[in-house]
Amino acid sequence: MIIDCHGHYTTAPAAHQRFRDAQVAGIKDPAAAPARPGQISDDEIRETIETNQLKLQQQRGADLTIFSPRASAMGHHVGDGKVSADWTRACNDLIARVVGLYPDNFIGVCQLPQSPGAALTGSIRELERCVSELGFVGCNLNPDPSGGRWNSPPLTDRFWYPFYEKMVELDVPAMIHVSASCNPNFHATGAHYINADTTAFMQFIEGDLFRDFPALRFIIPHGGGAVPYHWGRYRGLADMLKRPPLREHVMKNVFFDTCVYHQPGIDLLVKVIDLDNILFGSEMVGAVRGIDPETGHYFDDTKRYIDALPIPAADKSRIYERNARRVFPRLDAVLRSKGL
Amino acid sequence: MIIDCHGHYTTAPAAHQRFRDAQVAGIKDPAAAPARPGQISDDEIRETIETNQLKLQQQRGADLTIFSPRASAMGHHVGDGKVSADWTRACNDLIARVVGLYPDNFIGVCQLPQSPGAALTGSIRELERCVSELGFVGCNLNPDPSGGRWNSPPLTDRFWYPFYEKMVELDVPAMIHVSASCNPNFHATGAHYINADTTAFMQFIEGDLFRDFPALRFIIPHGGGAVPYHWGRYRGLADMLKRPPLREHVMKNVFFDTCVYHQPGIDLLVKVIDLDNILFGSEMVGAVRGIDPETGHYFDDTKRYIDALPIPAADKSRIYERNARRVFPRLDAVLRSKGL
Repeated sequence: MIIDCHGHYTTAPAAHQRFRDAQVAGIKDPAAAPARPGQISDDEIRETIETNQLKLQQQRGADLTIFSPRASAMGHHVGDGKVSADWTRACNDLIARVVGLYPDNFIGVCQLPQSPGAALTGSIRELERCVSELGFVGCNLNPDPSGGRWNSPPLTDRFWYPFYEKMVELDVPAMIHVSASCNPNFHATGAHYINADTTAFMQFIEGDLFRDFPALRFIIPHGGGAVPYHWGRYRGLADMLKRPPLREHVMKNVFFDTCVYHQPGIDLLVKVIDLDNILFGSEMVGAVRGIDPETGHYFDDTKRYIDALPIPAADKSRIYERNARRVFPRLDAVLRSKGL
Repeated sequence: MIIDCHGHYTTAPAAHQRFRDAQVAGIKDPAAAPARPGQISDDEIRETIETNQLKLQQQRGADLTIFSPRASAMGHHVGDGKVSADWTRACNDLIARVVGLYPDNFIGVCQLPQSPGAALTGSIRELERCVSELGFVGCNLNPDPSGGRWNSPPLTDRFWYPFYEKMVELDVPAMIHVSASCNPNFHATGAHYINADTTAFMQFIEGDLFRDFPALRFIIPHGGGAVPYHWGRYRGLADMLKRPPLREHVMKNVFFDTCVYHQPGIDLLVKVIDLDNILFGSEMVGAVRGIDPETGHYFDDTKRYIDALPIPAADKSRIYERNARRVFPRLDAVLRSKGL
């Protein structure tokens, strides 16, 4: 079985974006009628999924995608906590409808109603709702809800602890995933995403988060940002900072996906990172949608790179399935309930 | 001949830091007497160089280091433009003294008196002084003088153009190098440095800087940040943004060093990046000073990784010498004047 741990609903029906546009317009015009989520039919959802994520999932040979709202559209920096909460709820409800229509192909992970400077109370509530009521198995946590200003506390700060307590209680992991950038220095998918991945990992080295939360689990997407390429630097920095070896200090709790869009990058990833810490992911349909002229295949068809690895099939099944079931125990429970 | 393109004077005599400390103290106490650069004897410089950079250069088998002030101590975010200018001048003058004492082993690259929000007039003047009067061959340009707030314009913005005009006029390259981070999210050498490298490269993809300055040359240090590991992503993003292929659009003007502290990272670098774009560098004595328990050698002894590459000696000489002489024509001229 092949589980893609990283998919977003980047092709949601137009009414969903119209709701967002109206909501954003309302920020500047408080006299406007409150925006309401658009009417979206099941057929519209089917159309957008069957011609995109489901088609590609089947063409490429994956079975199940861990599916969440479009990351670049989370826009936690837009408006206040109420705007974020309303938008987040609509986004998550839409994911739940996709999962309801295709329960064998998709399982939900939620966006959180984060907002710059706001407490995490609303995020805790929404996580609880999505897991307990909608059957979601994880969440996407934004380490920089400001969208490129980076003025929240590091992920190891006690500010985040109430949220982590809820994650542990519900036994769900978080993918660390920023949203759009409103800082002109940072292209969203070309700089901000990758920088956030690298930044989070280094915060975990500096801190002692997993001493306080030994059961907490994070996926750092996009192949772990710059980390595997600079694995010697991070091992060396841990040593200089008198931290324990990374295997003990960080890698019991942190996992990387395979959203690295060329074979040499994937080769490096599996060479330096323990296979138990790698989860198959593609982030399709996402940041890079074209065909690589060097291979004739889609850049984000990451299954091809894993298939091409000279490692035993049993090791590939760790990347494709077993690690995801371990990191997402609620996913494992769903699959077991289906006899899978 | 082996040229290390990336060395900082991280071991400067204590009087140099005392000057900085007094200068920083003076920011809060305008009544204090102005700080003045400390008295440093030639013997003190010899002591700090011969027991560190020169010793390691010789032990590891390099010949010449392109040498600049300690990057993490540039501290452009500290104080105002006057503070930055005074500190920068002292730092560069100290590099000139090292080069004067060891003209066969070191050649100078300057720090710039950048300051958040300030125009680049002072940086242009200092670059001119360092190149014309001190014989320096390049500079370190900080894309984020705020130290982790990232509130300057991107490197492709016309704000930077007067400085680029001077670089082209003097025919010197810049290494893009941030300094310390005052943002608790970003560990300096573990996140801020690598993020800046990645960010700068993506800015070059988005912009058209090298159309306006075809002769401008940048070194992106630390192996190009996350870029080579995500080379497929960057090729794909250039395509999605309808930019020309990277080889034409960016890689005629941008070079990566080899400050990647493990063999698999270097293997990836030389696999995906054209050898003409790679300059040998170690950044020793720098961010990672320990011994890798997996190899028994220093993490930052990057020459070992290059030596171990299964490529012809002629290709290694491009990485070790020829590319540096092409990117730093003033260095090449100095070497030629010595018959090298």
